[in-house]
Amino acid sequence: MKVESVEFFYASMPVITDNVDGSQDALLVRVGDGIDVGWGECEASPLTCVAAFATPMSHGACQGVAPAVLGHRIDTPDDVRAFTERLRLRSLDLLQAPHVASGIETALWDLLGRRRGVPVWRLLGHGTNHRRVPYASVLFGDDAEETLRRATDIAADGYRAAKFGWGPYGHGSADADAELVRAAREGLGPEAALMIDAGQVWGRDVAALGERWPALVDADVLWIEEPFAGHALGSFGEARRELVGPAGPRLAAGEASHAPEMALNLIDLGGVEFIQIDAGRIGGVGPAAEVAAYADERGVTYVNHTFTSHLALSASLQPYAGFAGHPWCEYPTSLSPLALALTRDRIERDADGLVAAPDSPGLGIEVDLAAITPYLRSVDIDVDGVRLISLPGKDDTDARRQ
Amino acid sequence: MKVESVEFFYASMPVITDNVDGSQDALLVRVGDGIDVGWGECEASPLTCVAAFATPMSHGACQGVAPAVLGHRIDTPDDVRAFTERLRLRSLDLLQAPHVASGIETALWDLLGRRRGVPVWRLLGHGTNHRRVPYASVLFGDDAEETLRRATDIAADGYRAAKFGWGPYGHGSADADAELVRAAREGLGPEAALMIDAGQVWGRDVAALGERWPALVDADVLWIEEPFAGHALGSFGEARRELVGPAGPRLAAGEASHAPEMALNLIDLGGVEFIQIDAGRIGGVGPAAEVAAYADERGVTYVNHTFTSHLALSASLQPYAGFAGHPWCEYPTSLSPLALALTRDRIERDADGLVAAPDSPGLGIEVDLAAITPYLRSVDIDVDGVRLISLPGKDDTDARRQ
Repeated sequence: MKVESVEFFYASMPVITDNVDGSQDALLVRVGDGIDVGWGECEASPLTCVAAFATPMSHGACQGVAPAVLGHRIDTPDDVRAFTERLRLRSLDLLQAPHVASGIETALWDLLGRRRGVPVWRLLGHGTNHRRVPYASVLFGDDAEETLRRATDIAADGYRAAKFGWGPYGHGSADADAELVRAAREGLGPEAALMIDAGQVWGRDVAALGERWPALVDADVLWIEEPFAGHALGSFGEARRELVGPAGPRLAAGEASHAPEMALNLIDLGGVEFIQIDAGRIGGVGPAAEVAAYADERGVTYVNHTFTSHLALSASLQPYAGFAGHPWCEYPTSLSPLALALTRDRIERDADGLVAAPDSPGLGIEVDLAAITPYLRSVDIDVDGVRLISLPGKDDTDARRQ
Repeated sequence: MKVESVEFFYASMPVITDNVDGSQDALLVRVGDGIDVGWGECEASPLTCVAAFATPMSHGACQGVAPAVLGHRIDTPDDVRAFTERLRLRSLDLLQAPHVASGIETALWDLLGRRRGVPVWRLLGHGTNHRRVPYASVLFGDDAEETLRRATDIAADGYRAAKFGWGPYGHGSADADAELVRAAREGLGPEAALMIDAGQVWGRDVAALGERWPALVDADVLWIEEPFAGHALGSFGEARRELVGPAGPRLAAGEASHAPEMALNLIDLGGVEFIQIDAGRIGGVGPAAEVAAYADERGVTYVNHTFTSHLALSASLQPYAGFAGHPWCEYPTSLSPLALALTRDRIERDADGLVAAPDSPGLGIEVDLAAITPYLRSVDIDVDGVRLISLPGKDDTDARRQ
């Protein structure tokens, strides 16, 4: 079957704040071959992705994404992989391409899985679907008290692990940061796993992390995530050699990877021991699965990166479904009303408190387009007065029929 | 003074081919503070950049580029650097941001240089403006004969160096590739420097480069450029250890860098001995200058990457103007009529056949907006029926007045 349609839906909360909460808007992709459809989500700037999809070609290696998918056959997993390879060479100079491709590629797997009646993780070659320990992924409070409150709530909700990140962390003194980390540990209790996310705040500055290290050790932190810029491999390598001990906190990173090689570099050259991949950024489920296999061979723990909907969560759980020994799942617990409305199905904790990718066909998640219609933002892009692409808004009846 | 306006001009040849000729379209940026203006160029997909500039915020670390520049003071070089740092944290998750920022940042330097009456290279801290040997940068012909013809023409035009790339190279057998390289050498003659650009064709496959290596040695090739994907540091490192000898071809790469750290990684971890930076992609002139200083300290040769207009060429020559021992300048010789029309000034070879950054204020290049008006493509982007951004087309009178 050939891909006949690629449709985008840009949904947004009425007001977007400058909190680093990625669930405030969403770009959904629906691909269709005339019979089946598949859904995917880009973890990326919606308008920029739409432009990258539809843009006129600049030259042979700076083509928009549309011609790499529309009209191409999708009958086998290799056909999905061929999309990724086609795009790599044709859109080499289109920086945004991997972000929009992530949603499309995921939707192609979903379509293929639905058509064949099998989950995506089986299409990827996995024979089993391991359950994971969900860690609550939340932002630090504005101060230690608010952080303590959030941590206490998470523990009360039965979570055995939690990650705190962003907010004031890294922007004040090492002492202030230590207080935040202590508050998180105090609220969670001594048994739960605690991870800290620095959100690239120190750029390349290994000494800044060094100042915070004792507090991370004291609070028994499992990993410190993204202390440095996504490309700062030298700083990661130095921190690995100079700060990471035989026990204590490990280095984690990878969410910024928009190519599998970036993740491989973090493993091989950055000394990262937890590699965190967002299927909505790295080019989709296939490139993420490539990283999972690479990490698994090298004893590095693969972790999904997810801060948006349960559609994105399912996509992020597929790549490593079959690999044992990768216990964690990033599980967003403070989603916006939009992200909650987005899917009819959710990936909930089971009786053991664990989560797994759905076993139903494709991604196993039904998108509720009617429920998010009030959040849709229309987009119209014209070049030389000709409509290049148009996305339905909340008053558009096309969006309401699914 | 505060930045009051950031205007984009998207110019395009009437027909874009899938040749890898980056001069087929252009995205110009004009910034103004109410008194002076400055010009820059993004080496990137125009429509996608415009969307990345104007897009609504997705969250605190995925903001459009506009708020990082509009209304901010630009009185000193540090103010330009502050724009780059602001953008890094606020637009972390907006992949296209560095590409559009490159044109804006360059325009800010141009504005500051014009206002102070000094060239950008002086603002960057350089005390001298070294001349470079321009190498003609051309695509391989479709076959050895056409390549021979192009090389012969280049030699007849007085060039002492030339780089051939893309086209059929790397897509056929090693023997076919050897023929192309031989033809280039034959046409240039034995004295000229010859470089080869593989355009990332082998992904991560070091063996594929190994098969071509003897032909590169035989033809006395100075460097082989981008044999692997931009992020494939492991493959670069392996090739450096296993193929590169004490004499003979060296590894070159860097044009894909959209952050200084990417270039630093190619130097430190990839073993690249020629680092090629496009100021229109890496975030502008400042980030490029950072790489130049880093390369200079480590004995790695800095080379500009330029395949578009003489405005872009000037921007690419500024970052390393003051460093001796970096003899080369990529000099595009087969520009489109659009790219030629774009500037009133050009950087021509002097009596010694050398080129240098202009000594006049700013970038020292006057943009000829009237001359490119016939090439302008109008862009209109609406979100929820509200005009987000609008670029003038060829019939727009606003564009004609400069």
